[in-house]
Amino acid sequence: MLRVGLIGYGYWGPNLARNFDAHPGFDLVRICDMTKKRRNLAAETYRNVDVASDPDAITKATDIDVVIVATPVFTHYEMAKDALENGKHVWVEKPMTSTSEQARELTALADAKGLTLMVDHTFLFTGAVRKMKSLIDAGELGDLYYYDSVRINLGIFQHDVNVIWDLAPHDLSIMDYLLGPSARAVSATGSDHFETGLEDVAYLTVYYDDNLIAHFHLNWMSPVKLRKTLVGGSKKMLIWDDLNPEERLKIYDKGMDVQTLEGVYRVLATPRSGEMYSPVVDATEALKDEVDVFQKGIVSGNLPINDGAAGTRVVEMLEATDRSLRENGKVIELDPERPLNWTRTLESRQMSNLG
Amino acid sequence: MLRVGLIGYGYWGPNLARNFDAHPGFDLVRICDMTKKRRNLAAETYRNVDVASDPDAITKATDIDVVIVATPVFTHYEMAKDALENGKHVWVEKPMTSTSEQARELTALADAKGLTLMVDHTFLFTGAVRKMKSLIDAGELGDLYYYDSVRINLGIFQHDVNVIWDLAPHDLSIMDYLLGPSARAVSATGSDHFETGLEDVAYLTVYYDDNLIAHFHLNWMSPVKLRKTLVGGSKKMLIWDDLNPEERLKIYDKGMDVQTLEGVYRVLATPRSGEMYSPVVDATEALKDEVDVFQKGIVSGNLPINDGAAGTRVVEMLEATDRSLRENGKVIELDPERPLNWTRTLESRQMSNLG
Amino acid sequence: MLRVGLIGYGYWGPNLARNFDAHPGFDLVRICDMTKKRRNLAAETYRNVDVASDPDAITKATDIDVVIVATPVFTHYEMAKDALENGKHVWVEKPMTSTSEQARELTALADAKGLTLMVDHTFLFTGAVRKMKSLIDAGELGDLYYYDSVRINLGIFQHDVNVIWDLAPHDLSIMDYLLGPSARAVSATGSDHFETGLEDVAYLTVYYDDNLIAHFHLNWMSPVKLRKTLVGGSKKMLIWDDLNPEERLKIYDKGMDVQTLEGVYRVLATPRSGEMYSPVVDATEALKDEVDVFQKGIVSGNLPINDGAAGTRVVEMLEATDRSLRENGKVIELDPERPLNWTRTLESRQMSNLG
Amino acid sequence: MLRVGLIGYGYWGPNLARNFDAHPGFDLVRICDMTKKRRNLAAETYRNVDVASDPDAITKATDIDVVIVATPVFTHYEMAKDALENGKHVWVEKPMTSTSEQARELTALADAKGLTLMVDHTFLFTGAVRKMKSLIDAGELGDLYYYDSVRINLGIFQHDVNVIWDLAPHDLSIMDYLLGPSARAVSATGSDHFETGLEDVAYLTVYYDDNLIAHFHLNWMSPVKLRKTLVGGSKKMLIWDDLNPEERLKIYDKGMDVQTLEGVYRVLATPRSGEMYSPVVDATEALKDEVDVFQKGIVSGNLPINDGAAGTRVVEMLEATDRSLRENGKVIELDPERPLNWTRTLESRQMSNLG
Repeated sequence: MLRVGLIGYGYWGPNLARNFDAHPGFDLVRICDMTKKRRNLAAETYRNVDVASDPDAITKATDIDVVIVATPVFTHYEMAKDALENGKHVWVEKPMTSTSEQARELTALADAKGLTLMVDHTFLFTGAVRKMKSLIDAGELGDLYYYDSVRINLGIFQHDVNVIWDLAPHDLSIMDYLLGPSARAVSATGSDHFETGLEDVAYLTVYYDDNLIAHFHLNWMSPVKLRKTLVGGSKKMLIWDDLNPEERLKIYDKGMDVQTLEGVYRVLATPRSGEMYSPVVDATEALKDEVDVFQKGIVSGNLPINDGAAGTRVVEMLEATDRSLRENGKVIELDPERPLNWTRTLESRQMSNLG
Repeated sequence: MLRVGLIGYGYWGPNLARNFDAHPGFDLVRICDMTKKRRNLAAETYRNVDVASDPDAITKATDIDVVIVATPVFTHYEMAKDALENGKHVWVEKPMTSTSEQARELTALADAKGLTLMVDHTFLFTGAVRKMKSLIDAGELGDLYYYDSVRINLGIFQHDVNVIWDLAPHDLSIMDYLLGPSARAVSATGSDHFETGLEDVAYLTVYYDDNLIAHFHLNWMSPVKLRKTLVGGSKKMLIWDDLNPEERLKIYDKGMDVQTLEGVYRVLATPRSGEMYSPVVDATEALKDEVDVFQKGIVSGNLPINDGAAGTRVVEMLEATDRSLRENGKVIELDPERPLNWTRTLESRQMSNLG
Repeated sequence: MLRVGLIGYGYWGPNLARNFDAHPGFDLVRICDMTKKRRNLAAETYRNVDVASDPDAITKATDIDVVIVATPVFTHYEMAKDALENGKHVWVEKPMTSTSEQARELTALADAKGLTLMVDHTFLFTGAVRKMKSLIDAGELGDLYYYDSVRINLGIFQHDVNVIWDLAPHDLSIMDYLLGPSARAVSATGSDHFETGLEDVAYLTVYYDDNLIAHFHLNWMSPVKLRKTLVGGSKKMLIWDDLNPEERLKIYDKGMDVQTLEGVYRVLATPRSGEMYSPVVDATEALKDEVDVFQKGIVSGNLPINDGAAGTRVVEMLEATDRSLRENGKVIELDPERPLNWTRTLESRQMSNLG
Repeated sequence: MLRVGLIGYGYWGPNLARNFDAHPGFDLVRICDMTKKRRNLAAETYRNVDVASDPDAITKATDIDVVIVATPVFTHYEMAKDALENGKHVWVEKPMTSTSEQARELTALADAKGLTLMVDHTFLFTGAVRKMKSLIDAGELGDLYYYDSVRINLGIFQHDVNVIWDLAPHDLSIMDYLLGPSARAVSATGSDHFETGLEDVAYLTVYYDDNLIAHFHLNWMSPVKLRKTLVGGSKKMLIWDDLNPEERLKIYDKGMDVQTLEGVYRVLATPRSGEMYSPVVDATEALKDEVDVFQKGIVSGNLPINDGAAGTRVVEMLEATDRSLRENGKVIELDPERPLNWTRTLESRQMSNLG
C-alpha cells in the first residue's frame, strides 16, 4: 500500500483526494494546504487523514511514498524536486512546470532515482480521447491531414498566465497523445485587451512533418462555451464535441481522393458513403482510471503515458508560443536537430527552410 | 434605362441575369459565354437577349452602358479595363482582380472616367450583415475586441487558387465592412496535402489598431459545413450562424469589466444580464438589393459601398496572406505608412515594431 | 407519349408541371386554372402548352390521356370522376377526397375502367422515407412498438379544414406505408381557439394490432417549425428529423429486453451498443421519382404504391378523427369486421372490447 | 430549530438530507431506511444523525417535529398519516399518495391539526418554472392557448406503476402551477408492449375552460432523452428545453391575430417582430429553495405553494388517466360540479356536453 501526501487542496485537490482515497493501492495519509479553511474542509471530509500547512511535512516525510503536487504552476518545480530528492514518486498537475528546463531536470531526476513521475493530463483518460486514440492507431482515419481545436468560453481571466498557458495544456497534451510526440514547430498570434500583457484571445498553429497541421483557438471572452475538435484524415474525419454527451464523437465516412481525369491531376473531396456514426464512449471518471495507471506505473516501474517526457513536450510547446508571440507570429522550431519536414511543391513556399 | 451586357454565364451568371433582368432600371441586352451550351441556355431563358462568344461584343459595344464581369478571376482585370476604357460602368465579381496593383489601376481608371465600378461582395447585402452593421455602428457591442470566423466544408478543390483566395473574399469583405477599412496587418498559416502547392486548410489573422484581432478558419476538408462568426465587444457579443435560418443572429448581453478589487487590478468576464436575443433578419435576396444599390450608384454617381477601394482592400489582404505563407506566418503590414498601433504593456512584446 | 392536362396551377401546380414536362414519357399539353393571372404565368413558362379556364377542356378533351387534379380538396371527387369516366388516367393531390365514400367510388371506377389512379403522397418518394421503409422491411428495427410524429409550425389557418385535414395526410400516408395498411382504430383530441370550429391544435392516436401505437401532434400555432418522427422497435429505434439535412435519419442501437432476474420478470431498457449512425439518404427530388412511378404504373397497368386504396385509407382515418373529436376522443374503429386486437394482461383494461 | 426525521434514504433521500442538514432552521436528527447498507451510508455521511430501521422511530418520536416521507408511493399515505396524527409537520414525495381519497384525507387531517403538509414538487422551484410563472402571471403571453410537454427517454421500467404515474407527476404539477388549479377533464391513450399491463408509452390530454388544451407525451422507450415544453399564447409563445442549460427558455414574439379582410373573418398566424429572447434563469438548486419555503410555511402556518391541495389535484388527474385508459381514451371530468366550459361554434362538436 503506497502512502500518499497531497499538497494543495484547492479547486482540483478534492477530486484527487477522493480518487486516491478510493483506490485500494493507495493510502491517503496527509493533506497540505496554505489556508486554514481548506485544511479544515479536508480534515472534515477525511477523518483519518492528517493536515499540514508546510509542504515539507509531505515532501520530506518518512511515512510518505507518493507526493501529489496540486499547487500553483510556479511552485511545481520546487515541490516536485523536493519530493523526488527525498525518494518519493510524484504526481504533478499540468502544466508540469513554468519552464521546459525545469521539466527536463525533473524528468532526468526521476529517471536517475528510479522514481515514477506522472503529469496529470486527465483528458487522456476520458472515453472520448481513448476512443479517438484507438481509431487513429488502427488506421481508421487514414493519413492525418489536420487537427483543429476550439476551447473557448466566458472565462476567468488569470492573473499570472495568458489564455494559452491556462487552456492549451489540455489540448496540447491531447494532440501529443493522438498525433504522436513529433510536433516540429509552433506559431502563435493573439491579443490582450486590458493592458495586462496577457493574451485573452489566442490562436496557435503546431506543425508536424508531412504537412500535418494542428490549430487551436483559445478565448476567455466567448459568449458561449465550445469544446470542439475536428480531425481530418485521408479515409475518415471525426468531430469530438465534449459538450454533447449524447453524441460526443461523430465519425464521418468522408475523405479525399486524388484522381487523374482526362490527364489532369485532380483532388476530389468525396463524401464516400457519407455515413456518420456516433460510438458510445466510456463514461467512467477519467481521473479514476488515471490514478490506477499511476499506481500500476509505480509498481511496475513503467509508465505507459503521461510521463515526464510528455509533460516536458507540452511545456516546450507553451514556451514556443511565448517566443512566437514576442516575434510576431514567427514559426518557432521545437528542436533544431529535427527541423520540420514540410513538403511544398512550389519552391517559393519552402517552409522547411525555417529561420 | 441602362443597357446591360453580362460576360460569363456559369455558376453565378444566371443569378446576375435574373436580378438585372428584373430591375426596372436595367435592360439586359446581351450575354456572352465561351461555351455554346451556356449560350443556348441563356438564349432559351431570356428570349429578348442576344448571345455572344466574344467579350468584345459587350465591352466594346455601342448599345451597352453597363458591363458585368462574371468570368474567372484572372480575366477580371482585362475585361473590366476594356469596359471602362469604352465608357461602361462595371460590376465585377469577387475577388476583384488577381493583384492589388490591377485593382488600384481599375479604381483610378473608373474615377478618372467618372464611371461606377462595383465589386460584387454579395454578403454585405444580406439581412444578417446589415443587422450586425447597424448594431456595431450604434455602439451596441461597445469597443470591439475580436472577430472570429469559421467557413469550412467538404469542398471543391480549386485548381488555380488556394482555399484562402477561394473562400476568404467573403469574410474579408464582411470584416472590412463591419470593422471598417482600417486593417493594418495580416498573417497566415496553412497546409496543402496533395502536392498542389495550394493550401487546402488555412488560418488567417488580421490585425487592427487598439488590439482588435480578427481570425479566419478556412478549410476544404471539413466533414461538416460551418459558417459561423463570433464578434466580441466590451458591452455585448454576438454569434452569426448563417446555416441556422431560425436563429441566424444571437446577441448576448455579456461582456468584460475592469475592476480594482482590494487594490488589485482585475479583469472580470461578466455575464451581465446574460440574456440572449435573436432578432429577425431581413430575408430579401441580397443580390436584388445589391443590384438596386448599383443602379442608384450609377444614376447618382455615388456608390456608398462595395466600390473599387473596398475591392482593392480585399485583394491587398489576399496578397498579404500569400506573402505571409511564403515567409512562414510572418505578420505583413498592409500599408507601411500606417503601421499597426498595438498596445502592449510588456515591452518585449511590442508588435508595433514590426519587421 | 402520354398527353397530360393539369387542372390547378396554384401553390403545387408549378412543381407538377415542371416534373411532368421534364419526364420523357409525358407530354404536357394543357394547363387549366380559374384565374387569368395563373394562366398567364403558365403560358409564359411553358410556351408549347395551352391554357384553359374550364376543367372540361381537360377532363373531356380527346387529346389528353392523363389528368392531374391539383385543385382544392372539395373539388377532387368531381374532377377525378369526370376524368375517369372520360377514360383518362388520374393523378390526384392529397387528401384524395372529402369523404371515404367518394374515395372508394373513384377507386372502384378506376379499377372497372382499367385506368391508373394515383394519389400524390409525395413524401413516400423521399430518400428518408424509402430508407426507413427498407430498414423496417428488413427487420432492422425488430418488432415495432410505437410511431410518434410531430408536425408543427406557425402556419396558415385554413378556412375549410382543420389542422388535421391540413397536415396529417402527409403523416398518415407515411405511417400507412411504413407500418402497413392495417391501422385498426383512431382517436383524436384537439382544440380551436378562434371560434372557427376548426381545430388549430390536435393530437391523433392510431391503433394497430399487437399494441403498436402511433401518435401525431399537429399544430398551426407553434413558434418553431418541427418535423420529427420517432419509431421504436424491439431491436433498434430511429429518429427522422426532416429539417436537419445533414443528419436527417439517426438509427440507434438501443432496445428493450425481457429478462427474468432472481425469479422476477423484468423489462429492461437497454442501450445495447448504444451506437447511433446516420445513413446518407438519397436527395433526388421526390416528385421526380413519383412522376416516373406513375408513368410506369400507367404503362404496366400496375401501381405498386400510392394507389386509390392507399388514398382511401388516409381519408378513412381523417374521417374517423372527425368522429372522434365529435365524440370526445372516443376510439373509432376503422373496420367493424377487423376489430383491434390489443393484448392487455389486466382484464379491466381490455381495449379489444371496443365500443 | 425544527427537528427533522427522514424516512427513506434511497435515490432522492441523500439530496433531501443534504438540503435539510444545510438549512439553519432545521436540525436533521434521524434517518430511517429498511436496508442496513443505506443506513450505514447515512451514518457515515452525517455523524450526528441517528439511524433507524423502523419508521415508527420517526413518526412516533417525541424528539421529532418534522417528518420527511421519501419511501415508495404505496406507503406514503400510512407514513404521512402516522406522522400527522403524532403532531408532526410532513414533507411527502410525489406523487402524494396512491389514491385521491387518501390525498384528500391527509390534507384534511393536516388542516384539522394545524400542521403543515407539503408535497415535493421540486420542479416548481427551478429558475425556469419560476420565470415562466412570472411571465404568464404578468400577462406577457396573453391568453393561453395550449401547453405541450414531452418527457421521454430510455428509462427504467417501473414494476408497480405505468409511465404516467412515473413521469407525469412532474409535468402535471408544473402545469397546475403555471395554468392554475382549474383543469376540468383528462383523457389518456397509451400502450404496453411487454404484457405487464403497465403502459410504457402514453399520451395525456388535459382540458381547461375556454379551449385551453394541455398535452403530455410520456415514454420509457425513446432512444433520446427529451424534456421539452411549448406554451402558446395570444401574444407570445415559449419553449422550455430543460436539457439546454445555455438556452433553457426561449420566448418568441409570435402570436395570432384575428382580422376581417374584405369582409371575411380570418385568423392570421403572425410572427409579429419574430424576435426571440432567452432570459437567464436562476440556477440555484431548486430543492434548497423548496426546503426554505417549507420551513417558512411551518413557521408562518401558511404554505403558498405545493400544499396538500396541490398534491391532491395531481393524484386526481393521475386517477382520471387510469379510468380514461380503461374506457378507451374517454374524456373524464375531474369534478362533476365544475363541468368543462368548452366553446365550440359547431354544435355537432359540443364538448361541454361531456358524458
